[in-house]
Amino acid sequence: MALLDETDIHNKLKNFSGWNYSDKQIQKEFKLKDFSSALDFVNRIGKDAEAMNHHPDIFIHSYNKVKIIISTHSESGVTDKDFYLAKKIDDHNK
Amino acid sequence: MALLDETDIHNKLKNFSGWNYSDKQIQKEFKLKDFSSALDFVNRIGKDAEAMNHHPDIFIHSYNKVKIIISTHSESGVTDKDFYLAKKIDDHNK
Repeated sequence: MALLDETDIHNKLKNFSGWNYSDKQIQKEFKLKDFSSALDFVNRIGKDAEAMNHHPDIFIHSYNKVKIIISTHSESGVTDKDFYLAKKIDDHNK
Repeated sequence: MALLDETDIHNKLKNFSGWNYSDKQIQKEFKLKDFSSALDFVNRIGKDAEAMNHHPDIFIHSYNKVKIIISTHSESGVTDKDFYLAKKIDDHNK
């Protein structure tokens, strides 16, 4: 999977809401109804992560917030695989 | 639940392995077998958190690592409730 350059990344981000690029990663914070909903959301993400063998960092915090951080470690940056996972994650939060 | 002072906290920490106190919180990092095991561990913690109505911050990162951060927000610091949850979490990782 080819590494994307910053121009590519910012262009792709235009198709996403709430995702930001920084420090060679894309990230987004979600606010759920409560802790239990946050955990359910994380489990749905976990299933996708396992299916794709692509594992984001997941920070469950402040009771009902979930921050997701995605990058492609093997490429030391952002690839299309990261945007594919981001799309899947957004779909779980519709 | 009464706020513990730093002497109390450090004395209580002697009965725990791997937990550290800083910034009005206690925290510990766990390394699991893989991402799936990390998520299982987080779900077990989640059940305790719901049962106690006491919700830690949980950071699943680097594929198989889980960092737990606990404090009592209503008291702006650490109470016995935090140590009770920490003990439960350690029991899940035995």
